[in-house]
Amino acid sequence: MVFIQNQIDTKRSNWFITSSLKGISQVILIENTISGLIILAAITITSYSLGIIALLSAMVGTFVAKIGGAEQESIEQGLFGYNSVLTGMALALFLTGDERWITALIGAAIAAIFTAAMMHFMRQSSIPILTFPFIILSWFLLLTSYRLISVELSSDLVPQSLSNWKLNIEGETHWFNGAVNGIGQIFFLDHAISGILLFVAVFWAGWRFGLYAIIGNAVALLASYGLGGEHRAIFLGLYGYNAILTIFAVSIVFKENDRNGLFIGIIAAFLTVPITASISTWLIPFGLPALTMPFVLCTWLILGAKKVLPRL
Amino acid sequence: MVFIQNQIDTKRSNWFITSSLKGISQVILIENTISGLIILAAITITSYSLGIIALLSAMVGTFVAKIGGAEQESIEQGLFGYNSVLTGMALALFLTGDERWITALIGAAIAAIFTAAMMHFMRQSSIPILTFPFIILSWFLLLTSYRLISVELSSDLVPQSLSNWKLNIEGETHWFNGAVNGIGQIFFLDHAISGILLFVAVFWAGWRFGLYAIIGNAVALLASYGLGGEHRAIFLGLYGYNAILTIFAVSIVFKENDRNGLFIGIIAAFLTVPITASISTWLIPFGLPALTMPFVLCTWLILGAKKVLPRL
Amino acid sequence: MVFIQNQIDTKRSNWFITSSLKGISQVILIENTISGLIILAAITITSYSLGIIALLSAMVGTFVAKIGGAEQESIEQGLFGYNSVLTGMALALFLTGDERWITALIGAAIAAIFTAAMMHFMRQSSIPILTFPFIILSWFLLLTSYRLISVELSSDLVPQSLSNWKLNIEGETHWFNGAVNGIGQIFFLDHAISGILLFVAVFWAGWRFGLYAIIGNAVALLASYGLGGEHRAIFLGLYGYNAILTIFAVSIVFKENDRNGLFIGIIAAFLTVPITASISTWLIPFGLPALTMPFVLCTWLILGAKKVLPRL
Repeated sequence: MVFIQNQIDTKRSNWFITSSLKGISQVILIENTISGLIILAAITITSYSLGIIALLSAMVGTFVAKIGGAEQESIEQGLFGYNSVLTGMALALFLTGDERWITALIGAAIAAIFTAAMMHFMRQSSIPILTFPFIILSWFLLLTSYRLISVELSSDLVPQSLSNWKLNIEGETHWFNGAVNGIGQIFFLDHAISGILLFVAVFWAGWRFGLYAIIGNAVALLASYGLGGEHRAIFLGLYGYNAILTIFAVSIVFKENDRNGLFIGIIAAFLTVPITASISTWLIPFGLPALTMPFVLCTWLILGAKKVLPRL
Repeated sequence: MVFIQNQIDTKRSNWFITSSLKGISQVILIENTISGLIILAAITITSYSLGIIALLSAMVGTFVAKIGGAEQESIEQGLFGYNSVLTGMALALFLTGDERWITALIGAAIAAIFTAAMMHFMRQSSIPILTFPFIILSWFLLLTSYRLISVELSSDLVPQSLSNWKLNIEGETHWFNGAVNGIGQIFFLDHAISGILLFVAVFWAGWRFGLYAIIGNAVALLASYGLGGEHRAIFLGLYGYNAILTIFAVSIVFKENDRNGLFIGIIAAFLTVPITASISTWLIPFGLPALTMPFVLCTWLILGAKKVLPRL
Repeated sequence: MVFIQNQIDTKRSNWFITSSLKGISQVILIENTISGLIILAAITITSYSLGIIALLSAMVGTFVAKIGGAEQESIEQGLFGYNSVLTGMALALFLTGDERWITALIGAAIAAIFTAAMMHFMRQSSIPILTFPFIILSWFLLLTSYRLISVELSSDLVPQSLSNWKLNIEGETHWFNGAVNGIGQIFFLDHAISGILLFVAVFWAGWRFGLYAIIGNAVALLASYGLGGEHRAIFLGLYGYNAILTIFAVSIVFKENDRNGLFIGIIAAFLTVPITASISTWLIPFGLPALTMPFVLCTWLILGAKKVLPRL
């Protein structure tokens, strides 16, 4: 009996760990435990503490969904984990001071609640919520730093008046960095080895994910370079990560028919470049990062349009 | 016959007065004529003219709904009054010059139309519109002052660049004021006697309202103090009023089952503190007050989430 | 056989031209080929290149909808053209440099996709999308200029801090200009002859359109003058164009019963004045023009309210 109880306990905790790891892989719209594990390794290589916060955040999100009584199937797909993972990581990175670890985990818990709320509000539209809860929540929590002394903003995030803004695109070109940093930036990483590990995680889930990640990133690199974006941003991968997520969503995960979705995916990946440029302009007066908002808006645009333009 | 006609007229005007007073009590999510009357007294004690504008605004809202052909039941519950009450009061307070009284009443009329529109747009979600029309409308009308000379903004509302913003939390602690001002600030009042009268109005509607108001306010006071908010704001009740409204909405008015909603209400009341901090940061460049937006966003968050996480 | 083929081709291209011209007339909520042609003449008189971009943009929008597989009926009503027309024109006008012609046409294509997406997202509400896609898309594309050197903003659009803003309403009164510029500004035109031609286009579609255009514009002129708006803006027609569009939408195009919709249309036209003042204040820190947002918000407000207040 003790043996059976142990087995059940193991299975139970297995279930919890599996869902949490899938929560990590769902950040890139993939439901795959092993991919989640490889991604966790990629994060941990860059920063030990960031790896821990990513895993804990996924667990917190999954836990909140479970005690809240969400559908088991959605929980096990990791759908209540990925917004928590990103929120926890963003808060740990863009805040400073020791209290940020607690703030990050509280943020991860709220992210799961926000995910549930958005699922309700968007149900009628039959369009996925993507990472919208993470983005809005992180922006909101980062801005509390101007009113609450216990929340300390990183000195990287400086608000500027748009009237004083000068665009300076100068900077060296690092095409190799651009090629691997795009995927890394999805998880706020700019280490080459982390980028390569993330490609492994993506290819593990299917060769198409790997190939499309390369295509989406290439489209964004060329478009942002051709349109004259800031070189520093381009080769840090700041134009690439939204393109990769968008081509995944449009061409693979949420495509509704058997047709090759590559063409519309490439268009969508291209569109993330002006959308990224625009959103990061809107945010200049508040000093906030664009996060994955370009991906969300561009994917909603295309998925919504496909309901009315079915041949897209 | 004349006698009967008089009776009917009396009943008719009774109906109108009752609905208007309920419009005042609906500001705090309560449908109760006597509570409305006590609230009106609390406002009038602080400012005679503000009391008049509150009553007139409630009447304007009710009147617009009636001639517009709204469902009689909704009108009689005061549902077309409360956004008008708040809009009229906010405009009378945050504008200056004699024309503001007219602007306030026009604002009250638009608030009723906006209330109807929002009821339509949010019907699918089966989530209440709360004070959203009041907030958006007041922000919009206050900002017209930068373009129309007949609208004069109070000198209290000064836009500031976020890049020049310095957080200074210093200030004395006045726990008694904090305890009564929270409920007062729902109606823009910071007089102790008005606050106590508002507690009477709330207890009149039910002991649970009174008790939860105290709990919600206490949670917000402690949280905002603990997280390091500006002392001046805390003890003026500027962190408390949204918490009280939110705990009312989540734990009493819109709870869907028989379970004790106190736990989730306390969490919600706590969440209003960072949301208040954040919204008042977003508004710094525009010089606008947060009004009850933290209450609306936090309540939508929790009520939406409960549709997907039923055990919350 | 060649003859028949030619006929079919002619009919086919006829269909395409007709839909594109209706796309131009749909900017003022009118479905009429001749009106579209007269409007095109009005634009071309002011600027040859602007006329070309308007026609090409309408064609691009119609073409995208056709290859995307939209319902033929909607395409032939011009519903996929008008947002493209406005987007193409706005980008051609508010950007500078030779590349802006290409940007304008790409913008026109995205506008058609955005139109489709908004149709999906607003289907549940049974409220028309109006020019919302044009507005949001133009704002977004204009702001990319702060991040991409290939997009050059016109020097007219200067962001300013709201804290430095001084309202100066001084300026001569030109009532005749005000009378014809309102309708011209719908198409960014401020030539008297263009304005008169636009009145011809409108009267062609029905005397009621012509009459209501005059009424709506007069309401806005008087209201903005009476409330103390900037004279320069008033007599350039910058308060009038949204009022004309709004009275068309509320009193003619989207009214649901046989009652005379003039009264609510006049109220709606009046409301566009404070809404215009407010939106152009919100946009000061970003240096963006209000475009037709006041029309969209005011029309949504009234149409939404009428679902709950049927006697409005």
